[in-house]
Amino acid sequence: MRINGRTNQELRPMKIIPHYIKHAEGSVLIEVGDTKVICTATVEERVPPFMKGQGKGWVTAEYSMLPRATQVRNQREAAKGKLGGRTMEIQRLIGRALRSVVNLEALGERSITLDCDVIQADGGTRTTSITGAFVAMAFAVNKLVTDKNLKQFPINDFLASVSVGVIGDTPRLDLNYEEDSQAKVDMNVVMTGSGQFVEIQGTGEDAPFSRKELDELLELAETGIQAMIEEQRKVLGPISARIRGVEHATAE
Amino acid sequence: MRINGRTNQELRPMKIIPHYIKHAEGSVLIEVGDTKVICTATVEERVPPFMKGQGKGWVTAEYSMLPRATQVRNQREAAKGKLGGRTMEIQRLIGRALRSVVNLEALGERSITLDCDVIQADGGTRTTSITGAFVAMAFAVNKLVTDKNLKQFPINDFLASVSVGVIGDTPRLDLNYEEDSQAKVDMNVVMTGSGQFVEIQGTGEDAPFSRKELDELLELAETGIQAMIEEQRKVLGPISARIRGVEHATAE
Amino acid sequence: MRINGRTNQELRPMKIIPHYIKHAEGSVLIEVGDTKVICTATVEERVPPFMKGQGKGWVTAEYSMLPRATQVRNQREAAKGKLGGRTMEIQRLIGRALRSVVNLEALGERSITLDCDVIQADGGTRTTSITGAFVAMAFAVNKLVTDKNLKQFPINDFLASVSVGVIGDTPRLDLNYEEDSQAKVDMNVVMTGSGQFVEIQGTGEDAPFSRKELDELLELAETGIQAMIEEQRKVLGPISARIRGVEHATAE
Amino acid sequence: MRINGRTNQELRPMKIIPHYIKHAEGSVLIEVGDTKVICTATVEERVPPFMKGQGKGWVTAEYSMLPRATQVRNQREAAKGKLGGRTMEIQRLIGRALRSVVNLEALGERSITLDCDVIQADGGTRTTSITGAFVAMAFAVNKLVTDKNLKQFPINDFLASVSVGVIGDTPRLDLNYEEDSQAKVDMNVVMTGSGQFVEIQGTGEDAPFSRKELDELLELAETGIQAMIEEQRKVLGPISARIRGVEHATAE
Amino acid sequence: MRINGRTNQELRPMKIIPHYIKHAEGSVLIEVGDTKVICTATVEERVPPFMKGQGKGWVTAEYSMLPRATQVRNQREAAKGKLGGRTMEIQRLIGRALRSVVNLEALGERSITLDCDVIQADGGTRTTSITGAFVAMAFAVNKLVTDKNLKQFPINDFLASVSVGVIGDTPRLDLNYEEDSQAKVDMNVVMTGSGQFVEIQGTGEDAPFSRKELDELLELAETGIQAMIEEQRKVLGPISARIRGVEHATAE
Amino acid sequence: MRINGRTNQELRPMKIIPHYIKHAEGSVLIEVGDTKVICTATVEERVPPFMKGQGKGWVTAEYSMLPRATQVRNQREAAKGKLGGRTMEIQRLIGRALRSVVNLEALGERSITLDCDVIQADGGTRTTSITGAFVAMAFAVNKLVTDKNLKQFPINDFLASVSVGVIGDTPRLDLNYEEDSQAKVDMNVVMTGSGQFVEIQGTGEDAPFSRKELDELLELAETGIQAMIEEQRKVLGPISARIRGVEHATAE
Repeated sequence: MRINGRTNQELRPMKIIPHYIKHAEGSVLIEVGDTKVICTATVEERVPPFMKGQGKGWVTAEYSMLPRATQVRNQREAAKGKLGGRTMEIQRLIGRALRSVVNLEALGERSITLDCDVIQADGGTRTTSITGAFVAMAFAVNKLVTDKNLKQFPINDFLASVSVGVIGDTPRLDLNYEEDSQAKVDMNVVMTGSGQFVEIQGTGEDAPFSRKELDELLELAETGIQAMIEEQRKVLGPISARIRGVEHATAE
Repeated sequence: MRINGRTNQELRPMKIIPHYIKHAEGSVLIEVGDTKVICTATVEERVPPFMKGQGKGWVTAEYSMLPRATQVRNQREAAKGKLGGRTMEIQRLIGRALRSVVNLEALGERSITLDCDVIQADGGTRTTSITGAFVAMAFAVNKLVTDKNLKQFPINDFLASVSVGVIGDTPRLDLNYEEDSQAKVDMNVVMTGSGQFVEIQGTGEDAPFSRKELDELLELAETGIQAMIEEQRKVLGPISARIRGVEHATAE
Repeated sequence: MRINGRTNQELRPMKIIPHYIKHAEGSVLIEVGDTKVICTATVEERVPPFMKGQGKGWVTAEYSMLPRATQVRNQREAAKGKLGGRTMEIQRLIGRALRSVVNLEALGERSITLDCDVIQADGGTRTTSITGAFVAMAFAVNKLVTDKNLKQFPINDFLASVSVGVIGDTPRLDLNYEEDSQAKVDMNVVMTGSGQFVEIQGTGEDAPFSRKELDELLELAETGIQAMIEEQRKVLGPISARIRGVEHATAE
Repeated sequence: MRINGRTNQELRPMKIIPHYIKHAEGSVLIEVGDTKVICTATVEERVPPFMKGQGKGWVTAEYSMLPRATQVRNQREAAKGKLGGRTMEIQRLIGRALRSVVNLEALGERSITLDCDVIQADGGTRTTSITGAFVAMAFAVNKLVTDKNLKQFPINDFLASVSVGVIGDTPRLDLNYEEDSQAKVDMNVVMTGSGQFVEIQGTGEDAPFSRKELDELLELAETGIQAMIEEQRKVLGPISARIRGVEHATAE
Repeated sequence: MRINGRTNQELRPMKIIPHYIKHAEGSVLIEVGDTKVICTATVEERVPPFMKGQGKGWVTAEYSMLPRATQVRNQREAAKGKLGGRTMEIQRLIGRALRSVVNLEALGERSITLDCDVIQADGGTRTTSITGAFVAMAFAVNKLVTDKNLKQFPINDFLASVSVGVIGDTPRLDLNYEEDSQAKVDMNVVMTGSGQFVEIQGTGEDAPFSRKELDELLELAETGIQAMIEEQRKVLGPISARIRGVEHATAE
Repeated sequence: MRINGRTNQELRPMKIIPHYIKHAEGSVLIEVGDTKVICTATVEERVPPFMKGQGKGWVTAEYSMLPRATQVRNQREAAKGKLGGRTMEIQRLIGRALRSVVNLEALGERSITLDCDVIQADGGTRTTSITGAFVAMAFAVNKLVTDKNLKQFPINDFLASVSVGVIGDTPRLDLNYEEDSQAKVDMNVVMTGSGQFVEIQGTGEDAPFSRKELDELLELAETGIQAMIEEQRKVLGPISARIRGVEHATAE
């Protein structure tokens, strides 16, 4: 029996509070169970040096946890003077995932930075960051269109992410921290609204896993992600239509 | 006329949400106008090397702003690889201020770390951090007493902080970001519940100031701080009595 | 047609030169096509602080490229003063993968560090590092057993890794640098000798991928990895039997 | 009774040796009691990036102590690889204080860097640095005028600084290291020749202080600072007249 | 008696494998006894900022050791976050030595970076790096001439380096690691093909040395270096003639 | 003709002011021409980790220049966050040179740190640092003996250092900055009072040098160093006898 009586196929309660930070072009506070992340999207009219002059935009992400987001206080990376490997890995993943649904040519020579700051952690902080950052990015992009700085809506598809894992012999959806610590296989999956994979990262550090386990985990993930995307649609309201439209055009 | 029709002697609306982060021993979300800070208090059963073996405790603080707490995105200090001078100055101030009302002998050989993370900034982030951190610390200390890890309540007095400044020729209480940018004199004041000064930091970078201006600013600050302490008392509820008691003993 | 007339299901020529560095407890020079990596295994009679006193060993990895391993010279990370995100991601992957086949209790309170230094790069440097590091580790562990510092051979299974990807619409095995640059889907797979997955990292940054594509890629990877493990067996000679033995015991 | 029989209202002996370093545009060795600081002013025909194109100049400061300026050797910040919080706080204070008496428009698009290097420390190193740096800056600015690189003398007023504190119940002027260690209240004051405040930084870490104590400390500081400015006038000789003239114009 | 029966005047066996790294403009693997160094030369069509606009080229070097090049594993400097003093000293020496035989005007406004990576160390890594880097540089420069990017061959003379030392009372040529550890005097000498000195670095940390000892060491070094240059000539083949020609012109 | 009419064999005027910094166990201000260095010796009753438990002491050095010691202001290494290669090379040289005349066993398990801070630079800062640091060290060691913390005087011999170089075709002693910039050969020599070499570092970056030139330079250096040691003897007064005594014992 899982905490709060969840079934193995069930997501934790999820809440997305839009426009949470007044200064950002797009922002949300996303809560998945007790995991809470502030996601802001910043639009800047410049691209990094390696992208200059290509007429294309850039999407990147940064990830951090407040020191007391966790049960035991973590030292700040700013105080240590460097980013840890885990942080780098996560922010590279978030940036890559979000870029996969953005038409960088259509975005034009500007950049969007997604800042994902975990204020309370209870498992799944990287997947929750992706799901929240997508909504913050959509708000920011919509502002560009509304302000007539952009003609075409440059997001091709919805995008969300969830973790799955094997505890004992049982595949489970959306692990909290306690479950994650016990999982022998741990997998993060990022998918689009049209059901395609963007990232699969599966690790069997404590025990390798079979093809059959992999298949079961991917199915669980797909169910969870589509439910999350439903939630994103509600929060984005009419903006959702702009994403669907473009997506449809792409699929033709 | 000030924004929202405030008078020169008036604080911005202030709200303290207690127990905001579930993992921390003490925590609040404090909002003063549009400035919002998460303050957590972490208790650890050890002290820094330079304090070891003295039978005394330690109180320290760290301060940070989310990148998009401000109108223009700030680069993370973790990404730059070092803390800026402003951050260091502020976290040293917060730590020093809070230590002034704690009986470190009574705290015993343990440390309290106050993390002040600004999630939205609109002026007065350092003073708001002090006011919020005091409440987070009081919750954490109370937990130590309740859990029988501490006999005596080691906080001697209430403590809060506010900024004051001269805009044009007019002294004003509790500057927001826009006012702060225009101030020719800028002063941060930290005071105790019994009306004593703990820190005065006044700067006349754009124009030096007279003794008369100084006196007016200190009076404004005192009024504001006592109003803030009233708010702290309400949030702390019965814990307040423990602080008053000790304070009284000290005053004799 | 692929370079050198390879078919889509074909590995590049692979060579493992054992005992390449005289000082190391185990070492190889591994060449997969034009990718060349020196892998050394260092045994130290201590574990990192977080592992102390648990009676278990630790396996970790470090990865680096010589500045001119690549077509354009890369600045040294030592000169930059910090490890990049890509390096951290890769060395975490290598360490995690190798730990999955080691019985850390049987290893005892000592650590093995696998240094993977790419002296020439042509795609697949992280997968080649894993395949080579496994052999270096097996030599080092065998030395511990031979020197009577260890009773039980603590490696449970063989382990190798390969990259697969989709170029155009065609899934291909073991991409070189040029193919890797053109791939719309890129996946690194780590598997054991008994055919289980240890890591799957698939990325569709340029285009999301379908379940069908995923299945085809995993099959290609499995074929390639089992061929690589055959090569490892040859190089390890009689040591291979010790790995099989333990593996069999585990499977019962 | 204070060391050397000083009264509570008395400064330590003060000496300013002009033109101490031959390469600098302006320089002094300033000694206040046993505290000795080398202050150099460097003029550069450029401003920092954030000031470019505004037609204004910039004044900034750096502060450091030789490792053995103190009773116990301090590790070099260059060896630690970063500036400490105390150093940053002090150099920000020195820069801010000196800018307050400089007309940055009149200075033109050039910068003055004040390097304050403490070669021997015995309390009051930051206030001594300000008092000495003012003289070094005046020499450097005078050279610009003499060399016809500047028409108007851009320093508006004299500037000096002193520390005051409460030891036991007694306010004292110009604390040496031993007194500073015992002080329950510690205050650094920066004032202009015309008797206005530029900075007040008062700290009651060990015990909060009353309004009455504050008033007494400010009076002591004012007396000390005006005596120091007399000393500055003597060292600057005829250059002093240029500062007075501008100051008068400002006061009208 | 020395290891392998060498006489005191005898070099270790030396081998230079040309074109060892396919991407570099010039490269060798050089082996002197058990010391093995990969030297690559990278040509870039730019010079460092301090050389810009002078119409001259630049030659610089970087040096590193793989962690397990040594008997005991060394921590990577990239992981420590900074270059050690020994590394800096060595790479400054290599760069300085190689510049001494290059006509920087004739090279034109481009730079050559010599990367010397020690893959196995047994004494003399810095001198072996110089000897190998010279050959890598000659290959790279020859490619510039062959590709018609350069008219004149800009290397004036051959250059090689060896270590000498006093063990007990006996001067010896080309110390291996074990001899180096016992030497009371240790000297590295760099000389040109025409028999002139470029660098002499002699250290008597354990015991000062006399003028007579110095003279004996310099003679040993000269013999060894001329033998090494013979080896360089063989590897460079017809390119050697281009160096001799220029050298002759210089000598007139 | 040299500046100030010096002959090629003549040192610049040299002055050593003893006990310059009151806190240090030993200290001098040494001036050689316009080069001025503060040298302090700090005695600490501990040794670095790699020396622990060997019953021996350690001598080490740190070197720095004030930012405006030079004609053009240098950025502080503390602000850059790391020590430059030149600084590391110099402080390693100073430490090595001083250790060569100290009997580390006789010093006991304690360390002496020589801080050499250049306050004004005009050529020869590293050699001047060695000459001054020797005197500071002798004062500190003498204090250990006087305070009965040490029985035997552990310094074996005098030690001083000077630079020599070839300008045009002329070898010269003790180069100032201007001469140093023009020198085609530059050599730093460290010698003992008994006329033995401790370090020879000769560089012919701009032009290689012959054996004859080397011989002439070494003779010049010897003359200069013995004159410097005469000056050290005067400043050390009766302490000099203790050094001679030990030196004599060693020579038997």
